[in-house]
Order: sequence, then C-alpha cells, then structure tokens
Amino acid sequence: AMRAWLAERPPYLIADELTRTGSPGAAVAFRLLDKDRQLEVFEELDPAHQQEILLGLRDSAFREVVERMDPDDRARLLGEAPATVARRVLAGLSPGERRMTAALLGYPEGSVGRYMTPETVALRRGLTVAEALEVIRERGPDAETVYTLPVVTDSRRLVGVVSLRALVTSEPSAAVAELLAGDALSVHATDDAEEAARLMQEANLLGLPVVDSEERLVGLLTIDDAVELIEAADTEDIARQSGASPLSGHYIRATVFALARARAPWLLLLIVAATLTVNVLQFFEATLAQVTALALFIPLLGGTGGNTGSQAATAVVRALAVGEVRAADLPRVIWREARVGLVLGAMLAVVGLLVGTLLVGAEIAVVVAISIVAICCWASAIGGTMPLLAKKLRVDPAVISAPLVTTLVDATGLVIYFLVARAVLGV
Amino acid sequence: AMRAWLAERPPYLIADELTRTGSPGAAVAFRLLDKDRQLEVFEELDPAHQQEILLGLRDSAFREVVERMDPDDRARLLGEAPATVARRVLAGLSPGERRMTAALLGYPEGSVGRYMTPETVALRRGLTVAEALEVIRERGPDAETVYTLPVVTDSRRLVGVVSLRALVTSEPSAAVAELLAGDALSVHATDDAEEAARLMQEANLLGLPVVDSEERLVGLLTIDDAVELIEAADTEDIARQSGASPLSGHYIRATVFALARARAPWLLLLIVAATLTVNVLQFFEATLAQVTALALFIPLLGGTGGNTGSQAATAVVRALAVGEVRAADLPRVIWREARVGLVLGAMLAVVGLLVGTLLVGAEIAVVVAISIVAICCWASAIGGTMPLLAKKLRVDPAVISAPLVTTLVDATGLVIYFLVARAVLGV
Ligand SMILES: [Mg+2]
Ligand SMILES: [Mg+2]
Ligand SMILES: [Mg+2]
Ligand SMILES: [Mg+2]
Ligand SMILES: [Mg+2]
Ligand SMILES: [Mg+2]
Ligand SMILES: [Mg+2]
Ligand SMILES: [Mg+2]
Ligand SMILES: [Mg+2]
Ligand SMILES: [Mg+2]
Ligand SMILES: [Mg+2]
Ligand SMILES: [Mg+2]
Ligand SMILES: [Mg+2]
Repeated sequence: AMRAWLAERPPYLIADELTRTGSPGAAVAFRLLDKDRQLEVFEELDPAHQQEILLGLRDSAFREVVERMDPDDRARLLGEAPATVARRVLAGLSPGERRMTAALLGYPEGSVGRYMTPETVALRRGLTVAEALEVIRERGPDAETVYTLPVVTDSRRLVGVVSLRALVTSEPSAAVAELLAGDALSVHATDDAEEAARLMQEANLLGLPVVDSEERLVGLLTIDDAVELIEAADTEDIARQSGASPLSGHYIRATVFALARARAPWLLLLIVAATLTVNVLQFFEATLAQVTALALFIPLLGGTGGNTGSQAATAVVRALAVGEVRAADLPRVIWREARVGLVLGAMLAVVGLLVGTLLVGAEIAVVVAISIVAICCWASAIGGTMPLLAKKLRVDPAVISAPLVTTLVDATGLVIYFLVARAVLGV
Repeated sequence: AMRAWLAERPPYLIADELTRTGSPGAAVAFRLLDKDRQLEVFEELDPAHQQEILLGLRDSAFREVVERMDPDDRARLLGEAPATVARRVLAGLSPGERRMTAALLGYPEGSVGRYMTPETVALRRGLTVAEALEVIRERGPDAETVYTLPVVTDSRRLVGVVSLRALVTSEPSAAVAELLAGDALSVHATDDAEEAARLMQEANLLGLPVVDSEERLVGLLTIDDAVELIEAADTEDIARQSGASPLSGHYIRATVFALARARAPWLLLLIVAATLTVNVLQFFEATLAQVTALALFIPLLGGTGGNTGSQAATAVVRALAVGEVRAADLPRVIWREARVGLVLGAMLAVVGLLVGTLLVGAEIAVVVAISIVAICCWASAIGGTMPLLAKKLRVDPAVISAPLVTTLVDATGLVIYFLVARAVLGV
C-alpha cells in the first residue's frame, strides 16, 4: 500500500511527508522508492532531513544518492553537516563531482557561489545557431538548464546570454552573437545571494550568469534556487520581526528546545530593557500615588504606542527588503511617519477621550488623549527611523523587530504620559 | 543626458526610478524611451503607476502600449483602473487582444485565471519532435514562453507537458508523447493563485498548465508571475502581522493618508480592546491601592507576555503559509507551544526575580516571577493556537497579528498577575 502511495505522489509531496514523519520511518519509506524517484525526493528535502535519510542508507545507496545530487545542493548539505558526515560524503564522490563541490564550498556562506550551478552549457561567441543547437543536444543532458545559455570568449570571459527560445525561433545559419539579449546582467560569485535572487525577480530572468573576479564564467544562478533564496529571506525577516531567530528546519519537526532557543535571546534582552519601565514608574511613583487612576491607562497607552511603532517599523523593514526604500530616504521617512503618527494619534485620541471620560472622568481623559497623540507621533517616527539607521550602520534592518520597538516605546511613552499628567493636572 | 541614462539602464531599474519620480516627471521621461523599451519598462510598473503613465500619453501612444501588453498584465491593469480608463483601454484594443483580456477578466480576482497567460504553444499528442520544433518556430515568437509545452488531445484536453529541453535533446523522429514529464501537474483557472504559485515553487516548475472545468487547456502560469504572487503574498502577510493592511503601491509614493488608512482600522479595534485592560485594573483597584508597587511591573509583564505570544503566532502563521503546519495539527501545536512558553517563562522568571528583589523586595519579586511563568505559558499557547483556529474558521491566519495577540495577552495577563498577587500576598 505504501509502495503504491509513494509511486503515485509527486516528489515534493513525498518529501513533505518524509519530513513530517522523521527517522526511522522516513528512512524506511525512502528505501521503498525506486532509484530515480529517490533522487527527486531527496533533492526536495532540507539539508537537515537529507542528513537523517542518508544516515539510514547502506553505504552503496548512500554513495549513489550523493554522487547524483546537484553540486549546489550537495554544497548546501555539506555546509550544514557535521564533519564526520561531510568527510564520508566527500570520500564517496567521483573526482569530477568532488572538484565541483569543493569549488562551490570555497565561496563564502550566503554568496552566489554557494547557490549557483557550475553545470552550464556555455556557447562560444563565434557559433551559428545550428552549431549551438548541436552543442546543446550533446551537453544539455548533463547541464542544470539549457534555457539560459551564457556566451563566452575563447578564454571563457562572459559576453552575454542567448535564450534557447531565440535559438529555436531563428534561422539555423544565423550567428549566435546576433541573438544576444539586450541587457547583459551578471553577478560575481562572491556577491550576496539574496540580492542576486531579487535581481532575477525584478528582471524576470530564468538564469543569471555568475563570473569570477576576472569576468570569467563560473556558473549560473537558476530561478528555482532564486525563489528558494527569496522565500528563505522572507521567512527569516518574518521571524526576526517577532524577535526570533529563523528556525533552520521544519516547524513541526523542531524540538521544544530548538523553538525556545530561537526565541530566548531577544526575550531576555527585551525583559532586561523592560526593567527601564519599572525605573520610569518608580521615578514618577509620587505622581502615581497622588493620582492612582493614572495607573489604569498604562497598558492601554503602552499597547497603542507599541502597535503604532510596530506598524511603521514593519512597513519600512519590508520596503527596504524589496528595495522600495533606501538608506538615503531617512529624512523623508521620518517626516512622513511623524505625520502618519499624528493622523493616527488624533483618531485614537478620540477613543481615549471617550473611554477616559466614561470610566474615570474628564481631567484624566484629557491627559490620556494628549498622551496618545504625542506617543503615536513619536512611536511612528521612531519605528520608521530605526530600520534605516540599522541599514546605515550595516546591521540587518529586520532586527528592528516589533518587540524591540514596542519595548522602547513602552518606556519612553510612560515618560511622555507622566510629563503630560504633571503639566495638565499640576501635580 | 537623461536620454543617455535611459538608454543604458535595464528596464526594471528605469521602472523603479519612474515609480519614485511620479507624474508628471515620470510621463515625460517615459516619452523619451524608444518604443520597444517603453513596453519593457511599462511591464515592470505596478498597475497604479501604469495608469499614471498611460494618462500622460497621447492617444496613439496610449493605444500602442496597451495593445502590446501581455494579456495577463493588461487584465491586472484593468482590474484596478477606474471605469473610464478601463473603457478607454478596451476601446483601443484589436479584437483578438480584447477577447483574450475579457476572458481573463472573467475569472474571479485572486484566481489563477487572472495571472495565467493564454498565449501558450500547445502541442498535439501525435506529433514527432521535428514537427513539434516546427510548431515552436512558427508560433513561439507570439507566445509568452516556449519552455513548458502543454500536450493536448484534438479537443484541447490536457494530456501533460513536455519541456523544450526534452525536445532539443531528443531524436527528431521521436514521438512527443514519449517525452511527457513524469508528474503531470495542472491547476484549474478558478483555483487560488497563491496556492498554484507555491506549488510551482515546491515542484520547481517554470510553467504550470491551467485547465477549465472540462480539463481543456486555457493557459499557463509562468514562473515570473508565480514569483510576484509569492512575494505579494509575503508582503501582505508581513503587513498583516503588524496589524496593517497591505499597501497597494510603493511605500515612498504612498500618501500620508494612504499609510494612515492602511493602519487605522486595527489600531482602532485594538485600542477599543485595550479598554479591557482599564476594566481589569479597575476591578483590582483595591489590591493595587493596597500594594502600589504592583503597578511598577504592569508594563514589564504585559510586554513579556506580548512578545512571547507574538513569537508563537508569527511562527505558526508562517508555518501555515509555507505549508509546514496544517489545521489538523492544532492539538500538537498547543501542546508544544505551551511547553515552549514554560521553558521561556522559567528563564525569564529568573530575571524578574532578580530585578524585583533589587528594586522592590522579595515578596513582590516572587509574585512577578510566578506571573511571568504563567503568562508566558498562556501567551505562547494562545499565540500558537489562534492562527490555527482562524484557519479552521476559514479566516486568513495572517490576521492573527502580533498586536492582536499582544492586546489579548495584556488584558488576560493582568488577571493572572493580580490573582497570583492576591494568593501570594494574601491581600
Ligand atoms: Mg550533475
Ligand atoms: Mg535543485
Ligand atoms: Mg518580476
Ligand atoms: Mg519591480
Ligand atoms: Mg540548483
Ligand atoms: Mg534579510
Ligand atoms: Mg512578458
Ligand atoms: Mg501578445
Ligand atoms: Mg509579466
Ligand atoms: Mg523549489
Ligand atoms: Mg519543499
Ligand atoms: Mg505574465
Ligand atoms: Mg496570505
């Protein structure tokens, strides 16, 4: 029954089920697959789960799977595997595959070199379309893709790219050099992988040629890996926005301890920062003792300021990530977020005034309303500014998380609140 | 100078600059581009900015740009344009293009039909490779892509797909039917577009055939549009996570009013919900008056609970979005998030105990520490559970935003705090 189920499902679904199952069940199921399907499923697994499966295979099966992996996927697996597993993988490889993998592992983590495929079909500049199609027929089966074909000089310097589409819709006698695409984009192997992936998205590319420092072709970044890079970057940003580190694996398979570890550092930092609110309240304890009703609105004001600040921070972090905002936009962003905060604060102040008047009386309601306007304006400006300052300081803007802004606005908002209270109530 | 600058930049960069510039400057610059480049740049703009540019063109230029757009991009433009603009666009179209556009607009918003291209090269099942390549040479130039070729019966029923790669690496005399890809994935035109896009990512597809209710081929979803769909879905989820609606345009070009409008509804709802905290504090006012030092820790406890709950909610929302968690996982998620909250709470309680003892004394410190453990456990479980409940109720899980969880945990956390205080302090 299981064998039938496995034969019918597409590889990515089987990979999903194996991930949810975990070892040793996953390894057993994996062995039931036929060889070609094993490889397809294996390629869809995260490196962590690839390892689990590998360690459940006999030596010959282990070696065959590893030998047939794409070099970029293999480099990713090795990048995360413990040294003992990595050594066993490398030992089993044929010299050619070992060389390609070692070359990719030579590039820094997070660089294009780690994600590109070295298995490209490069065309010499002087070829005709018919000759190029012959090259593709011969070398295509071993390449990762044949749709984006880098064109190179005799010394492998990149000249541009032609698409297979241009080749198959042109006269066989035409020159490849005449079919070069208009905008010849390329990246260096040491460039940031996420930026290269976003460039592919912007320019609608299926493949982006990768060159070394001497502009010689070393590989091609393909759209499937670019999509994974963008998705991983978004997942990371989303996790950071909540003050957590991104999980390296699947949520359902992560242990309670792994989940706690991803969230603990920021929570610790933030609770320490939150002791500032205790200090602020101690400082204003006399005012608080005189007008205890002021205490009733502390969570409401903190919450409202935190929400407004988080919205601004989240919007600017995302705008930075997708390239809509640049570090140089800082003054523009402060000015507009302050006005947005003012508009929102004015609206929310009406609620504050109503609720305050109904529950405790007009005087404190006025204090609450004025505080809401001031806090919203301040929170929005701070929330919008901090990601840009982070960017200028070369810190990942995504660390300017909602909880960080909330905590900061909590403490500073209390100061605003009590200063307004003292001024209005004359205490 | 501007003309030279425009001639050198790739279209996506020009589109970016035009978006930041805004009308009328953008329209002037656009008219300086040559015709082919105009189209390339135009295709990279958001529908809102496409409209701006269009309205700055003379009638003949207007009609030419619109006529040459891809039908799916045109449908998106019309979907967002006011009726007067839409009518002017449709009036200028040739009958063929108008028919294609009308067909796409007939599908519901957010469905695959709105994003697919109807301009596919479909191959009859009986063709040989040589015949197929001849079809591609003829019809390829008008098609959106020639890399994924749907194979159909005489009545246009979808049989499967062949890749251009398979065709160019096979013998000319081979039968197309023998080259069909193993897993024949397809979607219906009325299916959800985001899900189809994520399927393409999972299965590493460049094109996904789209069929009608009778399994007849009606189009192809291409990877460039799938990537935009995924990115737009992520942007939407990120905005919602901060309690804001997604902006329809570019951050820098959005007006202060548009930004405020995107953020106002949730802020209003949340400040109304936050009045619950005022009620809770009023209810416990006697306790608070007796032990005023309890007030000092209100923001710290609220912040810690909110942060813990937001982290859990954010993690589960993302896991749902990428398919790692399903609604059926609810009991599993509650159980693990409660334990994660316990672990985190135990750690944070140590800080609470220290700070409390240093600043106000051991008795209240014990109250704070116990409350932290209870609140974290509760916040984490609630934060993890709510997105799954939303999913079960067919509400977008992303509306379970950090601010929503924070506000809920604020009010309930205070109840926990004062109950612990009464029990421990005997007041
Ligand atoms: Mg290979
Ligand atoms: Mg791959
Ligand atoms: Mg694009
Ligand atoms: Mg763009
Ligand atoms: Mg790859
Ligand atoms: Mg990032
Ligand atoms: Mg196009
Ligand atoms: Mg067309
Ligand atoms: Mg397009
Ligand atoms: Mg993929
Ligand atoms: Mg996957
Ligand atoms: Mg399209
Ligand atoms: Mg969504």
